[in-house]
Amino acid sequence: MKSKGNLIVISGPSGSGKGTVCQGLFKELDNLHLSISATTRKPRGNEQHGKDYYFLNREQFESLIAGDQLLEWANVYGNYYGTPRQPVLEAIDGGLDVILEIDVQGALHVKSKYPNCVLIFLIPPSRAELANRLKNRGTDSNDAIEHRLQWAESEIKKVREYDYLVINDDLAAATRKVSAIIIAERCRPGLFDIDLLLQKY
Amino acid sequence: MKSKGNLIVISGPSGSGKGTVCQGLFKELDNLHLSISATTRKPRGNEQHGKDYYFLNREQFESLIAGDQLLEWANVYGNYYGTPRQPVLEAIDGGLDVILEIDVQGALHVKSKYPNCVLIFLIPPSRAELANRLKNRGTDSNDAIEHRLQWAESEIKKVREYDYLVINDDLAAATRKVSAIIIAERCRPGLFDIDLLLQKY
Repeated sequence: MKSKGNLIVISGPSGSGKGTVCQGLFKELDNLHLSISATTRKPRGNEQHGKDYYFLNREQFESLIAGDQLLEWANVYGNYYGTPRQPVLEAIDGGLDVILEIDVQGALHVKSKYPNCVLIFLIPPSRAELANRLKNRGTDSNDAIEHRLQWAESEIKKVREYDYLVINDDLAAATRKVSAIIIAERCRPGLFDIDLLLQKY
Repeated sequence: MKSKGNLIVISGPSGSGKGTVCQGLFKELDNLHLSISATTRKPRGNEQHGKDYYFLNREQFESLIAGDQLLEWANVYGNYYGTPRQPVLEAIDGGLDVILEIDVQGALHVKSKYPNCVLIFLIPPSRAELANRLKNRGTDSNDAIEHRLQWAESEIKKVREYDYLVINDDLAAATRKVSAIIIAERCRPGLFDIDLLLQKY
Protein backbone atom coordinates (compact mmCIF):
# COMPACT_ATOMS: atom_id res chain seq x y z
CA MET A 1 0.00 0.00 0.00
CA LYS A 2 3.02 2.20 0.48
CA SER A 3 4.10 4.10 -2.59
CA LYS A 4 6.92 6.65 -2.40
CA GLY A 5 10.17 6.54 -0.47
CA ASN A 6 11.60 9.18 1.85
CA LEU A 7 14.51 11.53 1.36
CA ILE A 8 16.76 10.99 4.38
CA VAL A 9 19.50 13.57 4.86
CA ILE A 10 22.33 12.74 7.24
CA SER A 11 24.74 15.48 8.32
CA GLY A 12 27.58 15.49 10.77
CA PRO A 13 31.21 16.59 10.95
CA SER A 14 34.08 14.49 9.58
CA GLY A 15 34.80 12.00 12.33
CA SER A 16 31.17 11.79 13.46
CA GLY A 17 30.97 8.21 12.21
CA LYS A 18 28.51 9.14 9.46
CA GLY A 19 30.03 6.86 6.84
CA THR A 20 30.18 3.84 9.16
CA VAL A 21 26.61 4.39 10.33
CA CYS A 22 25.43 4.55 6.71
CA GLN A 23 27.19 1.29 5.89
CA GLY A 24 25.45 -0.24 8.91
CA LEU A 25 22.05 0.95 7.65
CA PHE A 26 22.46 -0.95 4.41
CA LYS A 27 23.07 -4.15 6.40
CA GLU A 28 19.97 -3.63 8.57
CA LEU A 29 17.41 -2.23 6.15
CA ASP A 30 16.03 -2.99 2.71
CA ASN A 31 14.83 -0.52 0.12
CA LEU A 32 17.62 2.01 0.64
CA HIS A 33 19.47 3.91 -2.04
CA LEU A 34 22.68 5.82 -1.31
CA SER A 35 22.89 9.04 -3.29
CA ILE A 36 26.24 9.58 -5.00
CA SER A 37 27.54 13.14 -5.12
CA ALA A 38 29.14 14.81 -8.09
CA THR A 39 32.39 16.73 -7.63
CA THR A 40 35.08 18.49 -9.57
CA ARG A 41 37.83 17.51 -7.15
CA LYS A 42 40.29 14.84 -8.25
CA PRO A 43 39.80 11.21 -7.13
CA ARG A 44 41.87 10.18 -4.08
CA GLY A 45 43.30 6.71 -3.45
CA ASN A 46 40.92 4.01 -4.66
CA GLU A 47 37.93 6.28 -5.23
CA GLN A 48 35.89 5.21 -8.24
CA HIS A 49 33.73 7.23 -10.60
CA GLY A 50 30.07 6.27 -10.12
CA LYS A 51 30.74 4.55 -6.79
CA ASP A 52 32.33 7.12 -4.47
CA TYR A 53 31.58 10.20 -6.57
CA TYR A 54 30.72 11.22 -10.07
CA PHE A 55 34.01 12.90 -10.98
CA LEU A 56 33.22 15.69 -13.40
CA ASN A 57 35.18 18.53 -14.92
CA ARG A 58 34.26 22.12 -14.24
CA GLU A 59 32.34 22.52 -17.48
CA GLN A 60 30.25 19.41 -16.90
CA PHE A 61 29.42 20.50 -13.34
CA GLU A 62 28.48 24.01 -14.36
CA SER A 63 26.16 22.68 -17.02
CA LEU A 64 24.36 20.67 -14.29
CA ILE A 65 23.98 23.89 -12.29
CA ALA A 66 22.74 25.79 -15.33
CA GLY A 67 20.21 23.04 -16.10
CA ASP A 68 18.89 23.00 -12.50
CA GLN A 69 19.84 19.35 -12.31
CA LEU A 70 21.29 19.49 -8.79
CA LEU A 71 19.29 19.15 -5.58
CA GLU A 72 21.98 21.23 -3.82
CA TRP A 73 25.54 22.19 -4.56
CA ALA A 74 28.40 24.17 -3.03
CA ASN A 75 31.84 25.41 -3.97
CA VAL A 76 34.34 24.39 -1.27
CA TYR A 77 37.85 25.76 -1.67
CA GLY A 78 37.43 25.98 -5.40
CA ASN A 79 35.94 22.51 -5.89
CA TYR A 80 32.29 21.95 -6.66
CA TYR A 81 30.24 19.34 -4.80
CA GLY A 82 26.59 18.59 -5.49
CA THR A 83 23.73 16.08 -5.51
CA PRO A 84 22.33 15.11 -8.94
CA ARG A 85 18.57 15.46 -8.70
CA GLN A 86 17.35 12.85 -11.19
CA PRO A 87 18.65 9.63 -9.57
CA VAL A 88 17.30 10.79 -6.18
CA LEU A 89 13.80 11.50 -7.45
CA GLU A 90 13.69 8.27 -9.47
CA ALA A 91 14.66 6.17 -6.46
CA ILE A 92 12.03 7.89 -4.28
CA ASP A 93 9.35 7.39 -6.93
CA GLY A 94 10.38 3.74 -7.03
CA GLY A 95 9.64 3.43 -3.30
CA LEU A 96 13.23 3.53 -2.06
CA ASP A 97 14.43 5.68 0.82
CA VAL A 98 17.32 7.78 -0.44
CA ILE A 99 20.23 8.46 1.93
CA LEU A 100 21.97 11.76 1.33
CA GLU A 101 25.19 12.47 3.25
CA ILE A 102 25.63 16.23 2.97
CA ASP A 103 26.68 19.20 5.07
CA VAL A 104 24.36 21.41 7.11
CA GLN A 105 24.09 24.18 4.55
CA GLY A 106 23.13 21.69 1.84
CA ALA A 107 20.72 19.90 4.17
CA LEU A 108 18.83 23.07 5.06
CA HIS A 109 18.69 23.99 1.39
CA VAL A 110 17.19 20.59 0.51
CA LYS A 111 14.68 20.98 3.38
CA SER A 112 13.56 24.34 2.00
CA LYS A 113 12.82 22.72 -1.37
CA TYR A 114 11.54 19.34 -0.05
CA PRO A 115 9.90 20.02 3.32
CA ASN A 116 9.04 16.33 3.72
CA CYS A 117 12.68 15.30 3.73
CA VAL A 118 14.04 13.99 7.02
CA LEU A 119 17.10 15.71 8.52
CA ILE A 120 19.29 13.71 10.89
CA PHE A 121 22.27 15.26 12.67
CA LEU A 122 24.93 12.81 13.86
CA ILE A 123 27.56 14.07 16.26
CA PRO A 124 30.04 12.74 18.83
CA PRO A 125 29.23 13.73 22.42
CA SER A 126 31.87 16.50 22.63
CA ARG A 127 34.54 18.43 20.77
CA ALA A 128 37.21 16.51 22.75
CA GLU A 129 35.76 13.19 21.58
CA LEU A 130 35.58 14.41 17.99
CA ALA A 131 39.19 15.61 18.21
CA ASN A 132 40.24 12.18 19.49
CA ARG A 133 38.57 10.42 16.61
CA LEU A 134 40.13 12.71 14.03
CA LYS A 135 43.58 12.22 15.59
CA ASN A 136 43.19 8.44 15.79
CA ARG A 137 42.10 8.33 12.17
CA GLY A 138 45.51 9.74 11.30
CA THR A 139 44.49 11.17 7.92
CA ASP A 140 44.55 14.89 8.78
CA SER A 141 47.27 17.34 9.80
CA ASN A 142 46.86 19.20 13.10
CA ASP A 143 45.83 22.28 11.17
CA ALA A 144 43.24 20.32 9.21
CA ILE A 145 41.90 18.80 12.43
CA GLU A 146 41.59 22.24 14.04
CA HIS A 147 39.77 23.47 10.95
CA ARG A 148 37.36 20.50 11.06
CA LEU A 149 36.65 21.15 14.75
CA GLN A 150 35.80 24.79 14.08
CA TRP A 151 33.61 23.73 11.20
CA ALA A 152 31.82 21.24 13.49
CA GLU A 153 31.30 23.98 16.06
CA SER A 154 29.68 26.24 13.51
CA GLU A 155 27.51 23.47 12.02
CA ILE A 156 26.15 22.15 15.30
CA LYS A 157 24.59 25.54 16.02
CA LYS A 158 21.97 24.63 13.41
CA VAL A 159 20.93 21.39 15.11
CA ARG A 160 17.59 22.80 16.26
CA GLU A 161 16.57 23.03 12.60
CA TYR A 162 17.05 19.28 12.21
CA ASP A 163 14.30 16.71 12.70
CA TYR A 164 16.51 14.33 14.68
CA LEU A 165 19.71 14.46 16.71
CA VAL A 166 21.75 11.30 17.23
CA ILE A 167 24.65 11.54 19.66
CA ASN A 168 27.18 8.97 18.52
CA ASP A 169 28.79 7.77 21.74
CA ASP A 170 28.41 4.15 20.64
CA LEU A 171 28.47 3.17 16.99
CA ALA A 172 26.06 0.23 17.23
CA ALA A 173 23.57 2.24 19.28
CA ALA A 174 23.80 5.21 16.91
CA THR A 175 23.23 2.96 13.90
CA ARG A 176 20.22 1.42 15.64
CA LYS A 177 18.79 4.89 16.27
CA VAL A 178 19.21 6.08 12.69
CA SER A 179 17.74 2.80 11.50
CA ALA A 180 14.75 3.32 13.84
CA ILE A 181 14.25 6.83 12.47
CA ILE A 182 14.10 5.46 8.91
CA ILE A 183 11.63 2.72 9.93
CA ALA A 184 9.51 5.26 11.81
CA GLU A 185 9.44 7.69 8.90
CA ARG A 186 8.12 4.89 6.67
CA CYS A 187 5.02 4.88 8.90
CA ARG A 188 3.93 8.45 8.08
CA PRO A 189 0.27 8.45 6.97
CA GLY A 190 1.19 10.72 4.05
CA LEU A 191 3.16 7.84 2.47
CA PHE A 192 0.12 5.54 2.40
CA ASP A 193 -2.80 5.48 0.03
CA ILE A 194 -5.34 6.29 2.75
CA ASP A 195 -8.29 6.29 0.35
CA LEU A 196 -7.45 2.70 -0.58
CA LEU A 197 -7.18 1.78 3.11
CA LEU A 198 -10.56 3.38 3.82
CA GLN A 199 -12.09 1.35 0.96
CA LYS A 200 -10.97 -1.79 2.78
CA TYR A 201 -13.04 -0.73 5.82
CA MET B 1 21.81 14.86 28.30
CA LYS B 2 18.21 13.87 27.60
CA SER B 3 15.72 15.14 30.13
CA LYS B 4 11.99 14.62 29.56
CA GLY B 5 10.13 11.63 28.20
CA ASN B 6 7.55 11.56 25.42
CA LEU B 7 3.82 11.03 25.59
CA ILE B 8 3.09 8.18 23.15
CA VAL B 9 -0.58 7.64 22.33
CA ILE B 10 -1.56 4.36 20.67
CA SER B 11 -5.03 4.00 19.18
CA GLY B 12 -6.64 1.23 17.23
CA PRO B 13 -9.85 -0.79 17.21
CA SER B 14 -10.43 -3.78 19.48
CA GLY B 15 -8.75 -6.66 17.69
CA SER B 16 -6.00 -4.47 16.21
CA GLY B 17 -3.42 -6.18 18.40
CA LYS B 18 -2.80 -3.02 20.42
CA GLY B 19 -2.49 -4.77 23.76
CA THR B 20 -0.09 -7.43 22.46
CA VAL B 21 2.06 -4.82 20.71
CA CYS B 22 2.27 -2.80 23.94
CA GLN B 23 3.36 -5.89 25.88
CA GLY B 24 6.04 -6.43 23.24
CA LEU B 25 7.29 -2.86 23.64
CA PHE B 26 7.98 -3.40 27.32
CA LYS B 27 10.16 -6.40 26.42
CA GLU B 28 12.14 -4.44 23.81
CA LEU B 29 12.54 -1.00 25.38
CA ASP B 30 13.58 0.52 28.68
CA ASN B 31 12.23 3.68 30.27
CA LEU B 32 8.59 3.07 29.41
CA HIS B 33 5.61 3.69 31.65
CA LEU B 34 2.16 2.30 30.82
CA SER B 35 -0.58 4.71 31.80
CA ILE B 36 -3.46 3.11 33.72
CA SER B 37 -6.94 4.41 32.97
CA ALA B 38 -9.62 5.13 35.53
CA THR B 39 -13.12 3.81 34.95
CA THR B 40 -16.48 3.49 36.66
CA ARG B 41 -17.28 0.18 34.99
CA LYS B 42 -17.14 -2.96 37.13
CA PRO B 43 -14.00 -5.16 37.05
CA ARG B 44 -14.24 -8.20 34.72
CA GLY B 45 -12.58 -11.58 35.32
CA ASN B 46 -9.19 -11.15 36.94
CA GLU B 47 -8.89 -7.41 36.43
CA GLN B 48 -7.14 -5.70 39.32
CA HIS B 49 -7.46 -2.19 40.70
CA GLY B 50 -4.24 -0.24 40.02
CA LYS B 51 -3.02 -2.76 37.44
CA ASP B 52 -5.67 -3.02 34.72
CA TYR B 53 -7.68 0.04 35.72
CA TYR B 54 -8.31 2.31 38.63
CA PHE B 55 -11.86 1.22 39.46
CA LEU B 56 -13.68 4.23 40.85
CA ASN B 57 -17.27 5.01 41.71
CA ARG B 58 -19.19 7.71 39.90
CA GLU B 59 -18.63 10.28 42.61
CA GLN B 60 -14.86 9.73 42.68
CA PHE B 61 -14.63 9.97 38.90
CA GLU B 62 -16.70 13.12 38.71
CA SER B 63 -14.51 14.76 41.32
CA LEU B 64 -11.49 14.04 39.07
CA ILE B 65 -13.33 15.72 36.20
CA ALA B 66 -14.28 18.68 38.38
CA GLY B 67 -10.67 19.06 39.57
CA ASP B 68 -9.31 18.95 35.98
CA GLN B 69 -7.24 15.93 36.98
CA LEU B 70 -7.86 13.95 33.80
CA LEU B 71 -5.87 14.26 30.58
CA GLU B 72 -8.96 13.07 28.69
CA TRP B 73 -12.15 11.28 29.56
CA ALA B 74 -15.31 9.97 27.93
CA ASN B 75 -18.62 8.52 28.91
CA VAL B 76 -19.19 5.28 26.98
CA TYR B 77 -22.61 3.67 27.42
CA GLY B 78 -22.99 5.19 30.85
CA ASN B 79 -19.51 4.27 32.12
CA TYR B 80 -16.75 6.81 32.53
CA TYR B 81 -13.23 6.16 31.24
CA GLY B 82 -10.33 8.57 31.63
CA THR B 83 -6.59 9.11 32.00
CA PRO B 84 -5.38 10.52 35.34
CA ARG B 85 -3.09 13.42 34.52
CA GLN B 86 -0.68 13.41 37.48
CA PRO B 87 1.02 9.99 37.02
CA VAL B 88 1.51 10.70 33.30
CA LEU B 89 3.18 14.08 33.85
CA GLU B 90 5.34 12.74 36.69
CA ALA B 91 6.62 9.85 34.55
CA ILE B 92 7.40 12.21 31.66
CA ASP B 93 9.23 14.62 33.96
CA GLY B 94 11.20 11.63 35.25
CA GLY B 95 12.40 10.91 31.70
CA LEU B 96 10.07 7.99 30.96
CA ASP B 97 8.06 7.62 27.77
CA VAL B 98 4.44 7.17 28.73
CA ILE B 99 2.30 4.79 26.67
CA LEU B 100 -1.36 5.74 26.52
CA GLU B 101 -3.79 3.26 24.92
CA ILE B 102 -6.87 5.36 24.15
CA ASP B 103 -9.48 5.83 21.45
CA VAL B 104 -9.27 8.28 18.57
CA GLN B 105 -11.44 10.94 20.17
CA GLY B 106 -9.32 10.89 23.33
CA ALA B 107 -6.09 10.86 21.31
CA LEU B 108 -7.03 13.94 19.32
CA HIS B 109 -8.09 15.69 22.51
CA VAL B 110 -4.71 14.93 24.12
CA LYS B 111 -2.94 16.18 20.97
CA SER B 112 -4.82 19.47 21.15
CA LYS B 113 -3.56 19.98 24.71
CA TYR B 114 -0.08 18.44 24.28
CA PRO B 115 0.97 19.09 20.66
CA ASN B 116 4.29 17.30 21.24
CA CYS B 117 2.60 14.00 22.01
CA VAL B 118 3.07 11.26 19.44
CA LEU B 119 -0.04 9.67 17.92
CA ILE B 120 0.24 6.14 16.53
CA PHE B 121 -2.65 4.40 14.79
CA LEU B 122 -2.49 0.61 14.72
CA ILE B 123 -4.88 -1.23 12.43
CA PRO B 124 -5.23 -4.60 10.70
CA PRO B 125 -4.96 -4.44 6.90
CA SER B 126 -8.72 -4.71 6.25
CA ARG B 127 -12.17 -4.93 7.80
CA ALA B 128 -12.30 -8.62 6.84
CA GLU B 129 -9.06 -9.29 8.72
CA LEU B 130 -10.29 -7.36 11.75
CA ALA B 131 -13.58 -9.30 11.66
CA ASN B 132 -11.61 -12.58 11.58
CA ARG B 133 -9.58 -11.61 14.61
CA LEU B 134 -12.62 -10.57 16.59
CA LYS B 135 -14.40 -13.85 15.71
CA ASN B 136 -11.35 -15.96 16.58
CA ARG B 137 -11.02 -14.18 19.90
CA GLY B 138 -14.45 -15.54 20.76
CA THR B 139 -15.23 -12.93 23.41
CA ASP B 140 -17.89 -10.92 21.55
CA SER B 141 -21.36 -11.67 20.22
CA ASN B 142 -22.02 -11.18 16.50
CA ASP B 143 -23.83 -7.95 17.30
CA ALA B 144 -20.91 -6.71 19.37
CA ILE B 145 -18.48 -7.61 16.57
CA GLU B 146 -20.58 -5.74 14.03
CA HIS B 147 -20.66 -2.76 16.34
CA ARG B 148 -16.85 -2.87 16.78
CA LEU B 149 -16.36 -3.02 13.00
CA GLN B 150 -18.54 0.04 12.48
CA TRP B 151 -16.65 1.82 15.23
CA ALA B 152 -13.33 0.93 13.54
CA GLU B 153 -14.65 2.24 10.24
CA SER B 154 -15.55 5.58 11.80
CA GLU B 155 -12.25 5.86 13.73
CA ILE B 156 -9.97 5.09 10.81
CA LYS B 157 -11.29 8.12 8.95
CA LYS B 158 -9.19 10.21 11.35
CA VAL B 159 -5.91 8.47 10.54
CA ARG B 160 -4.55 11.46 8.60
CA GLU B 161 -4.51 13.41 11.88
CA TYR B 162 -2.14 10.84 13.37
CA ASP B 163 1.66 11.10 13.30
CA TYR B 164 2.16 7.46 12.40
CA LEU B 165 0.18 4.61 10.87
CA VAL B 166 1.18 1.02 11.54
CA ILE B 167 -0.63 -1.67 9.54
CA ASN B 168 -0.62 -4.77 11.69
CA ASP B 169 -0.40 -7.61 9.20
CA ASP B 170 2.35 -9.27 11.23
CA LEU B 171 2.54 -8.87 14.98
CA ALA B 172 6.36 -8.99 15.28
CA ALA B 173 6.83 -6.51 12.43
CA ALA B 174 4.19 -4.17 13.85
CA THR B 175 5.84 -4.26 17.30
CA ARG B 176 9.20 -3.52 15.69
CA LYS B 177 7.72 -0.52 13.91
CA VAL B 178 6.10 0.94 17.02
CA SER B 179 9.33 0.33 18.90
CA ALA B 180 11.26 2.16 16.14
CA ILE B 181 8.85 5.09 16.37
CA ILE B 182 9.48 5.38 20.11
CA ILE B 183 13.28 5.19 19.63
CA ALA B 184 13.10 7.78 16.82
CA GLU B 185 10.99 10.17 18.87
CA ARG B 186 13.63 10.04 21.62
CA CYS B 187 16.00 11.66 19.10
CA ARG B 188 14.02 14.91 18.71
CA PRO B 189 16.34 17.89 19.29
CA GLY B 190 13.69 19.47 21.53
CA LEU B 191 14.26 16.72 24.12
CA PHE B 192 17.96 17.53 24.45
CA ASP B 193 19.66 20.31 26.33
CA ILE B 194 21.14 21.88 23.20
CA ASP B 195 22.81 24.72 25.08
CA LEU B 196 24.72 22.15 27.11
CA LEU B 197 25.71 20.32 23.92
CA LEU B 198 26.91 23.57 22.34
CA GLN B 199 29.02 24.26 25.43
CA LYS B 200 30.79 20.96 24.77
CA TYR B 201 31.80 22.25 21.31
